[in-house]
Amino acid sequence: MRVAELSRRTGVSVASIKYYLREGLLPPGERTSPNQARYGEEHVRRLRLVRALIDVGGLSVAGTRDVLAAVDADEVSLHHVLGTTQDALLGEPAVTDDDATDRAGKLVDDLVARRGWHVVPSNPGRRAAVEILATSERLGTDVLARLLDTYAETLEPLARREVGAVVGRGDREDVVEGAVLGTVLGAGLIAALRTMVHESASAELASGPAVSAEDG
Amino acid sequence: MRVAELSRRTGVSVASIKYYLREGLLPPGERTSPNQARYGEEHVRRLRLVRALIDVGGLSVAGTRDVLAAVDADEVSLHHVLGTTQDALLGEPAVTDDDATDRAGKLVDDLVARRGWHVVPSNPGRRAAVEILATSERLGTDVLARLLDTYAETLEPLARREVGAVVGRGDREDVVEGAVLGTVLGAGLIAALRTMVHESASAELASGPAVSAEDG
Repeated sequence: MRVAELSRRTGVSVASIKYYLREGLLPPGERTSPNQARYGEEHVRRLRLVRALIDVGGLSVAGTRDVLAAVDADEVSLHHVLGTTQDALLGEPAVTDDDATDRAGKLVDDLVARRGWHVVPSNPGRRAAVEILATSERLGTDVLARLLDTYAETLEPLARREVGAVVGRGDREDVVEGAVLGTVLGAGLIAALRTMVHESASAELASGPAVSAEDG
Repeated sequence: MRVAELSRRTGVSVASIKYYLREGLLPPGERTSPNQARYGEEHVRRLRLVRALIDVGGLSVAGTRDVLAAVDADEVSLHHVLGTTQDALLGEPAVTDDDATDRAGKLVDDLVARRGWHVVPSNPGRRAAVEILATSERLGTDVLARLLDTYAETLEPLARREVGAVVGRGDREDVVEGAVLGTVLGAGLIAALRTMVHESASAELASGPAVSAEDG
Protein backbone atom coordinates (compact mmCIF):
# COMPACT_ATOMS: atom_id res chain seq x y z
CA MET A 1 0.00 0.00 0.00
CA ARG A 2 1.02 3.65 -0.49
CA VAL A 3 1.79 5.94 2.43
CA ALA A 4 -1.67 7.54 2.09
CA GLU A 5 -3.37 4.20 2.70
CA LEU A 6 -1.00 3.37 5.57
CA SER A 7 -2.09 6.69 7.09
CA ARG A 8 -5.78 5.92 6.56
CA ARG A 9 -5.47 2.39 7.99
CA THR A 10 -3.69 3.53 11.17
CA GLY A 11 -5.09 7.01 11.71
CA VAL A 12 -1.52 8.36 11.81
CA SER A 13 -0.90 11.45 9.65
CA VAL A 14 1.44 11.19 6.64
CA ALA A 15 3.67 13.83 8.25
CA SER A 16 4.01 11.70 11.41
CA ILE A 17 4.72 8.56 9.36
CA LYS A 18 7.50 10.40 7.52
CA TYR A 19 8.88 11.62 10.85
CA TYR A 20 8.91 8.07 12.26
CA LEU A 21 10.67 6.85 9.08
CA ARG A 22 13.36 9.55 9.49
CA GLU A 23 13.75 8.71 13.19
CA GLY A 24 14.09 4.99 12.45
CA LEU A 25 10.96 3.98 14.39
CA LEU A 26 9.44 2.54 11.22
CA PRO A 27 11.46 0.50 8.69
CA PRO A 28 11.57 1.96 5.15
CA GLY A 29 9.02 0.67 2.65
CA GLU A 30 9.92 -1.08 -0.58
CA ARG A 31 10.97 1.66 -2.99
CA THR A 32 8.95 1.55 -6.25
CA SER A 33 10.16 4.86 -7.73
CA PRO A 34 12.45 7.66 -6.53
CA ASN A 35 9.50 9.31 -4.74
CA GLN A 36 7.31 6.38 -3.84
CA ALA A 37 7.46 3.36 -1.60
CA ARG A 38 5.14 0.47 -0.87
CA TYR A 39 4.25 -0.55 2.69
CA GLY A 40 2.93 -3.84 4.05
CA GLU A 41 0.98 -5.23 7.02
CA GLU A 42 4.18 -5.23 9.09
CA HIS A 43 4.20 -1.43 8.79
CA VAL A 44 0.59 -1.23 10.01
CA ARG A 45 1.46 -3.37 13.01
CA ARG A 46 4.68 -1.51 13.80
CA LEU A 47 3.02 1.89 13.46
CA ARG A 48 0.31 0.89 15.94
CA LEU A 49 2.98 -0.32 18.35
CA VAL A 50 4.88 2.96 18.01
CA ARG A 51 1.72 4.97 18.72
CA ALA A 52 0.85 2.82 21.74
CA LEU A 53 4.32 3.37 23.19
CA ILE A 54 4.31 7.11 22.54
CA ASP A 55 0.64 8.03 23.09
CA VAL A 56 -0.39 5.63 25.83
CA GLY A 57 2.97 4.89 27.45
CA GLY A 58 4.25 8.45 27.12
CA LEU A 59 7.63 7.13 25.92
CA SER A 60 10.08 9.50 24.23
CA VAL A 61 11.20 8.92 20.64
CA ALA A 62 14.60 7.77 21.96
CA GLY A 63 12.95 5.43 24.50
CA THR A 64 10.69 4.03 21.80
CA ARG A 65 13.72 3.42 19.55
CA ASP A 66 15.46 1.49 22.38
CA VAL A 67 12.40 -0.68 22.97
CA LEU A 68 11.93 -1.43 19.26
CA ALA A 69 15.61 -2.34 18.90
CA ALA A 70 15.22 -4.84 21.76
CA VAL A 71 12.00 -6.21 20.23
CA ASP A 72 13.75 -6.71 16.87
CA ALA A 73 16.98 -8.23 18.21
CA ASP A 74 16.73 -11.99 17.71
CA GLU A 75 19.39 -12.81 20.27
CA VAL A 76 17.96 -10.79 23.12
CA SER A 77 16.12 -12.48 25.99
CA LEU A 78 12.57 -11.58 26.95
CA HIS A 79 14.02 -10.55 30.30
CA HIS A 80 16.21 -7.96 28.55
CA VAL A 81 13.33 -6.66 26.42
CA LEU A 82 11.23 -6.19 29.56
CA GLY A 83 14.09 -4.35 31.27
CA THR A 84 14.49 -1.98 28.33
CA THR A 85 10.74 -1.31 28.29
CA GLN A 86 10.69 -0.65 32.03
CA ASP A 87 13.63 1.75 31.71
CA ALA A 88 11.87 3.67 28.94
CA LEU A 89 8.55 3.70 30.81
CA LEU A 90 9.77 4.79 34.24
CA GLY A 91 12.65 6.98 33.09
CA GLU A 92 15.61 7.90 35.24
CA PRO A 93 14.38 9.10 38.64
CA ALA A 94 16.16 12.16 40.03
CA VAL A 95 17.79 10.41 42.99
CA THR A 96 18.72 12.73 45.82
CA ASP A 97 21.33 11.49 48.23
CA ASP A 98 20.17 12.23 51.77
CA ASP A 99 19.04 10.46 54.94
CA ALA A 100 15.49 10.12 53.62
CA THR A 101 16.85 8.29 50.56
CA ASP A 102 18.89 5.95 52.77
CA ARG A 103 15.87 5.12 54.92
CA ALA A 104 13.66 4.62 51.84
CA GLY A 105 16.31 2.34 50.32
CA LYS A 106 16.25 0.21 53.45
CA LEU A 107 12.44 0.07 53.42
CA VAL A 108 12.49 -1.19 49.83
CA ASP A 109 15.36 -3.65 50.33
CA ASP A 110 13.64 -5.09 53.41
CA LEU A 111 10.43 -5.47 51.40
CA VAL A 112 12.28 -7.25 48.59
CA ALA A 113 13.91 -9.60 51.13
CA ARG A 114 10.60 -10.28 52.92
CA ARG A 115 8.89 -11.18 49.65
CA GLY A 116 11.86 -13.07 48.17
CA TRP A 117 11.85 -11.07 44.96
CA HIS A 118 14.75 -11.33 42.50
CA VAL A 119 15.42 -7.66 41.83
CA VAL A 120 18.77 -6.11 40.95
CA PRO A 121 19.66 -2.80 42.66
CA SER A 122 19.55 -1.00 39.29
CA ASN A 123 15.96 -2.11 38.60
CA PRO A 124 14.13 1.06 37.49
CA GLY A 125 11.18 0.14 39.70
CA ARG A 126 13.41 -0.15 42.75
CA ARG A 127 14.97 3.25 42.08
CA ALA A 128 11.54 4.81 41.51
CA ALA A 129 10.11 3.24 44.71
CA VAL A 130 13.05 4.57 46.75
CA GLU A 131 12.65 8.08 45.35
CA ILE A 132 8.88 8.06 45.94
CA LEU A 133 9.17 6.89 49.55
CA ALA A 134 11.96 9.42 50.20
CA THR A 135 9.81 12.18 48.69
CA SER A 136 6.93 11.10 50.93
CA GLU A 137 9.13 11.29 54.01
CA ARG A 138 10.42 14.74 53.05
CA LEU A 139 6.81 15.84 52.69
CA GLY A 140 6.06 14.54 56.15
CA THR A 141 3.61 11.82 55.11
CA ASP A 142 3.97 8.13 55.94
CA VAL A 143 0.78 6.90 54.23
CA LEU A 144 2.67 5.08 51.48
CA ALA A 145 5.23 3.58 53.86
CA ARG A 146 2.43 2.26 56.08
CA LEU A 147 0.65 0.75 53.07
CA LEU A 148 3.86 -0.63 51.49
CA ASP A 149 3.21 -4.28 52.36
CA THR A 150 -0.43 -3.95 51.33
CA TYR A 151 0.66 -2.58 47.96
CA ALA A 152 3.20 -5.38 47.51
CA GLU A 153 0.84 -8.18 48.59
CA THR A 154 -1.90 -6.89 46.30
CA LEU A 155 0.23 -6.23 43.26
CA GLU A 156 2.44 -9.34 43.34
CA PRO A 157 -0.19 -11.88 42.19
CA LEU A 158 -1.54 -9.41 39.62
CA ALA A 159 1.90 -8.69 38.14
CA ARG A 160 2.72 -12.41 38.10
CA ARG A 161 -0.49 -13.10 36.21
CA GLU A 162 0.44 -10.38 33.73
CA VAL A 163 3.78 -12.08 33.02
CA GLY A 164 2.08 -15.48 32.81
CA ALA A 165 -0.52 -14.12 30.39
CA VAL A 166 2.04 -13.15 27.76
CA VAL A 167 4.70 -15.84 28.19
CA GLY A 168 4.18 -19.02 26.23
CA ARG A 169 1.57 -17.56 23.88
CA GLY A 170 2.49 -17.73 20.18
CA ASP A 171 5.91 -17.25 18.64
CA ARG A 172 8.75 -15.09 19.94
CA GLU A 173 7.48 -11.95 18.20
CA ASP A 174 4.06 -12.35 19.82
CA VAL A 175 5.56 -12.93 23.26
CA VAL A 176 7.97 -10.00 23.05
CA GLU A 177 5.42 -7.61 21.59
CA GLY A 178 2.83 -8.80 24.11
CA ALA A 179 5.28 -8.18 26.96
CA VAL A 180 6.05 -4.65 25.73
CA LEU A 181 2.37 -3.81 25.22
CA GLY A 182 1.37 -5.45 28.49
CA THR A 183 3.98 -3.44 30.38
CA VAL A 184 2.96 -0.13 28.83
CA LEU A 185 -0.80 -0.55 28.35
CA GLY A 186 -1.21 -2.48 31.62
CA ALA A 187 0.39 0.39 33.55
CA GLY A 188 -2.13 2.76 31.97
CA LEU A 189 -5.06 0.43 32.70
CA ILE A 190 -4.04 0.07 36.35
CA ALA A 191 -3.82 3.84 36.73
CA ALA A 192 -7.20 4.21 35.00
CA LEU A 193 -9.04 1.63 37.13
CA ARG A 194 -7.49 3.02 40.33
CA THR A 195 -8.80 6.46 39.37
CA MET A 196 -12.28 5.04 38.83
CA VAL A 197 -12.32 3.33 42.25
CA HIS A 198 -11.04 6.53 43.87
CA GLU A 199 -13.88 8.51 42.34
CA SER A 200 -16.39 5.88 43.37
CA ALA A 201 -15.11 5.69 46.97
CA SER A 202 -14.84 9.45 47.21
CA ALA A 203 -18.38 9.91 45.79
CA GLU A 204 -19.71 7.53 48.45
CA LEU A 205 -17.94 9.59 51.14
CA ALA A 206 -19.11 12.89 49.59
CA SER A 207 -22.73 11.78 49.87
CA GLY A 208 -21.93 11.04 53.53
CA PRO A 209 -20.04 13.49 55.78
CA ALA A 210 -18.49 16.28 53.70
CA VAL A 211 -14.88 17.39 54.01
CA SER A 212 -15.15 21.16 54.11
CA ALA A 213 -13.19 24.08 55.48
CA GLU A 214 -15.23 24.00 58.71
CA ASP A 215 -13.77 20.59 59.56
CA GLY A 216 -10.26 22.07 59.73
CA MET B 1 14.57 32.68 55.54
CA ARG B 2 16.11 34.13 52.37
CA VAL B 3 15.65 32.47 48.98
CA ALA B 4 19.16 30.95 49.24
CA GLU B 5 18.20 29.08 52.40
CA LEU B 6 14.85 28.03 50.93
CA SER B 7 16.87 26.58 48.05
CA ARG B 8 19.27 24.79 50.40
CA ARG B 9 16.45 23.39 52.56
CA THR B 10 14.51 21.95 49.61
CA GLY B 11 17.25 21.13 47.11
CA VAL B 12 15.44 23.26 44.52
CA SER B 13 17.63 25.76 42.64
CA VAL B 14 17.08 29.50 43.13
CA ALA B 15 16.35 29.79 39.40
CA SER B 16 13.58 27.18 39.70
CA ILE B 17 12.15 28.87 42.80
CA LYS B 18 11.98 32.18 40.92
CA TYR B 19 10.31 30.42 38.00
CA TYR B 20 7.67 28.87 40.31
CA LEU B 21 7.08 32.32 41.89
CA ARG B 22 6.54 33.85 38.43
CA GLU B 23 4.23 30.98 37.42
CA GLY B 24 2.19 31.33 40.61
CA LEU B 25 3.01 27.84 41.92
CA LEU B 26 4.60 29.36 45.03
CA PRO B 27 3.06 32.32 46.92
CA PRO B 28 5.30 35.40 47.13
CA GLY B 29 7.45 35.82 50.24
CA GLU B 30 7.15 38.75 52.61
CA ARG B 31 8.98 41.63 50.94
CA THR B 32 11.74 43.09 53.18
CA SER B 33 13.37 45.38 50.61
CA PRO B 34 12.83 46.07 46.89
CA ASN B 35 15.08 43.13 46.00
CA GLN B 36 14.61 40.77 48.91
CA ALA B 37 11.85 38.68 50.41
CA ARG B 38 11.54 36.42 53.41
CA TYR B 39 10.10 32.90 53.15
CA GLY B 40 8.62 30.63 55.80
CA GLU B 41 7.96 26.96 56.54
CA GLU B 42 4.83 27.10 54.38
CA HIS B 43 7.09 27.82 51.41
CA VAL B 44 9.26 24.79 52.20
CA ARG B 45 6.17 22.59 52.36
CA ARG B 46 4.59 24.03 49.21
CA LEU B 47 7.84 23.77 47.26
CA ARG B 48 8.17 20.08 48.14
CA LEU B 49 4.57 19.52 47.07
CA VAL B 50 5.24 21.29 43.76
CA ARG B 51 8.32 19.14 43.12
CA ALA B 52 6.46 15.93 43.97
CA LEU B 53 3.69 16.83 41.52
CA ILE B 54 6.11 17.81 38.74
CA ASP B 55 9.00 15.35 39.25
CA VAL B 56 7.22 12.25 40.49
CA GLY B 57 3.75 12.79 39.04
CA GLY B 58 5.01 14.23 35.76
CA LEU B 59 2.37 16.99 35.95
CA SER B 60 2.66 20.05 33.73
CA VAL B 61 3.03 23.52 35.23
CA ALA B 62 -0.56 24.26 34.22
CA GLY B 63 -1.80 20.99 35.75
CA THR B 64 0.14 21.69 38.95
CA ARG B 65 -1.41 25.18 39.12
CA ASP B 66 -4.92 23.66 38.81
CA VAL B 67 -4.23 21.14 41.58
CA LEU B 68 -2.78 23.79 43.93
CA ALA B 69 -5.77 26.08 43.31
CA ALA B 70 -8.09 23.22 44.31
CA VAL B 71 -5.96 22.46 47.39
CA ASP B 72 -6.08 26.11 48.47
CA ALA B 73 -9.79 26.69 47.83
CA ASP B 74 -11.55 26.48 51.20
CA GLU B 75 -14.98 25.83 49.73
CA VAL B 76 -14.00 22.95 47.47
CA SER B 77 -14.87 19.35 48.38
CA LEU B 78 -12.24 16.65 48.69
CA HIS B 79 -14.07 14.91 45.85
CA HIS B 80 -13.41 17.91 43.59
CA VAL B 81 -9.73 18.14 44.61
CA LEU B 82 -9.29 14.44 43.77
CA GLY B 83 -10.97 14.94 40.39
CA THR B 84 -8.70 17.85 39.54
CA THR B 85 -5.63 15.82 40.54
CA GLN B 86 -6.76 12.85 38.46
CA ASP B 87 -7.36 15.10 35.45
CA ALA B 88 -3.87 16.57 35.76
CA LEU B 89 -2.27 13.15 36.31
CA LEU B 90 -3.93 11.23 33.49
CA GLY B 91 -4.25 14.10 31.02
CA GLU B 92 -6.69 14.16 28.15
CA PRO B 93 -6.51 10.85 26.27
CA ALA B 94 -6.61 11.15 22.48
CA VAL B 95 -9.97 9.47 21.98
CA THR B 96 -10.45 7.99 18.53
CA ASP B 97 -14.00 7.36 17.43
CA ASP B 98 -14.22 3.93 15.82
CA ASP B 99 -15.74 0.50 16.39
CA ALA B 100 -12.87 -0.51 18.69
CA THR B 101 -13.63 2.51 20.89
CA ASP B 102 -17.33 1.60 21.00
CA ARG B 103 -16.55 -1.98 22.03
CA ALA B 104 -14.01 -0.81 24.63
CA GLY B 105 -16.56 1.66 26.02
CA LYS B 106 -19.05 -1.16 26.44
CA LEU B 107 -16.41 -3.36 28.16
CA VAL B 108 -15.69 -0.58 30.67
CA ASP B 109 -19.35 0.35 31.26
CA ASP B 110 -20.22 -3.31 31.84
CA LEU B 111 -17.35 -3.58 34.32
CA VAL B 112 -18.52 -0.46 36.18
CA ALA B 113 -22.07 -1.88 36.34
CA ARG B 114 -20.86 -5.32 37.51
CA ARG B 115 -18.83 -3.76 40.31
CA GLY B 116 -21.39 -1.11 41.23
CA TRP B 117 -18.90 1.74 40.97
CA HIS B 118 -20.11 5.35 41.02
CA VAL B 119 -18.19 6.74 38.06
CA VAL B 120 -19.31 9.60 35.81
CA PRO B 121 -18.75 9.13 32.04
CA SER B 122 -16.25 12.02 32.02
CA ASN B 123 -14.05 10.36 34.70
CA PRO B 124 -10.48 10.61 33.34
CA GLY B 125 -9.83 7.01 34.37
CA ARG B 126 -12.84 5.79 32.42
CA ARG B 127 -11.71 7.67 29.30
CA ALA B 128 -8.15 6.34 29.69
CA ALA B 129 -9.36 2.76 30.21
CA VAL B 130 -11.51 2.95 27.06
CA GLU B 131 -8.65 4.31 24.98
CA ILE B 132 -6.22 1.66 26.29
CA LEU B 133 -8.59 -1.25 25.61
CA ALA B 134 -9.38 0.14 22.14
CA THR B 135 -5.64 0.47 21.43
CA SER B 136 -5.14 -3.14 22.54
CA GLU B 137 -7.86 -4.35 20.20
CA ARG B 138 -6.40 -2.38 17.28
CA LEU B 139 -3.05 -4.04 18.03
CA GLY B 140 -4.71 -7.43 17.94
CA THR B 141 -4.11 -8.32 21.59
CA ASP B 142 -6.84 -9.25 24.07
CA VAL B 143 -4.58 -9.84 27.11
CA LEU B 144 -5.84 -6.75 28.95
CA ALA B 145 -9.48 -7.41 28.10
CA ARG B 146 -9.18 -10.98 29.40
CA LEU B 147 -7.55 -9.73 32.62
CA LEU B 148 -9.97 -6.80 33.08
CA ASP B 149 -11.97 -8.35 35.93
CA THR B 150 -8.77 -9.56 37.60
CA TYR B 151 -7.37 -6.03 37.45
CA ALA B 152 -10.59 -4.57 38.86
CA GLU B 153 -10.98 -7.16 41.64
CA THR B 154 -7.35 -6.71 42.69
CA LEU B 155 -7.21 -2.94 42.55
CA GLU B 156 -10.59 -2.14 44.12
CA PRO B 157 -9.72 -3.03 47.75
CA LEU B 158 -6.28 -1.40 47.39
CA ALA B 159 -7.69 1.85 46.00
CA ARG B 160 -10.40 1.89 48.69
CA ARG B 161 -7.74 1.48 51.37
CA GLU B 162 -5.81 4.37 49.82
CA VAL B 163 -8.86 6.63 50.12
CA GLY B 164 -9.50 5.41 53.65
CA ALA B 165 -5.88 6.03 54.64
CA VAL B 166 -6.05 9.76 53.90
CA VAL B 167 -9.64 10.60 54.83
CA GLY B 168 -10.31 11.53 58.43
CA ARG B 169 -6.64 12.08 59.30
CA GLY B 170 -5.85 15.57 60.62
CA ASP B 171 -7.33 18.84 59.47
CA ARG B 172 -8.65 19.70 56.03
CA GLU B 173 -5.23 20.77 54.73
CA ASP B 174 -3.70 17.43 55.79
CA VAL B 175 -6.53 15.44 54.20
CA VAL B 176 -6.47 17.36 50.92
CA GLU B 177 -2.68 17.38 50.62
CA GLY B 178 -2.59 13.70 51.59
CA ALA B 179 -5.15 12.89 48.91
CA VAL B 180 -3.16 14.77 46.26
CA LEU B 181 0.12 13.17 47.29
CA GLY B 182 -1.46 9.75 47.65
CA THR B 183 -2.93 9.97 44.17
CA VAL B 184 0.32 11.05 42.55
CA LEU B 185 2.94 9.23 44.63
CA GLY B 186 0.76 6.12 44.99
CA ALA B 187 0.48 5.83 41.21
CA GLY B 188 4.28 5.96 40.98
CA LEU B 189 4.71 3.41 43.77
CA ILE B 190 2.27 0.99 42.12
CA ALA B 191 4.13 1.28 38.81
CA ALA B 192 7.45 0.78 40.62
CA LEU B 193 6.39 -2.31 42.59
CA ARG B 194 4.77 -3.84 39.48
CA THR B 195 8.07 -3.38 37.64
CA MET B 196 9.95 -5.12 40.45
CA VAL B 197 7.58 -8.12 40.42
CA HIS B 198 7.85 -8.29 36.61
CA GLU B 199 11.62 -8.43 36.83
CA SER B 200 11.47 -11.03 39.56
CA ALA B 201 8.97 -13.24 37.68
CA SER B 202 10.85 -12.79 34.43
CA ALA B 203 14.20 -13.62 36.12
CA GLU B 204 12.67 -16.83 37.47
CA LEU B 205 11.50 -17.72 33.95
CA ALA B 206 14.88 -16.76 32.43
CA SER B 207 16.67 -19.16 34.75
CA GLY B 208 14.19 -21.76 33.53
CA PRO B 209 13.31 -22.20 29.84
CA ALA B 210 14.73 -19.29 27.85
CA VAL B 211 12.74 -17.31 25.32
CA SER B 212 15.08 -17.06 22.37
CA ALA B 213 14.84 -16.69 18.63
CA GLU B 214 14.90 -20.49 18.20
CA ASP B 215 11.55 -20.75 20.01
CA GLY B 216 9.89 -18.69 17.26
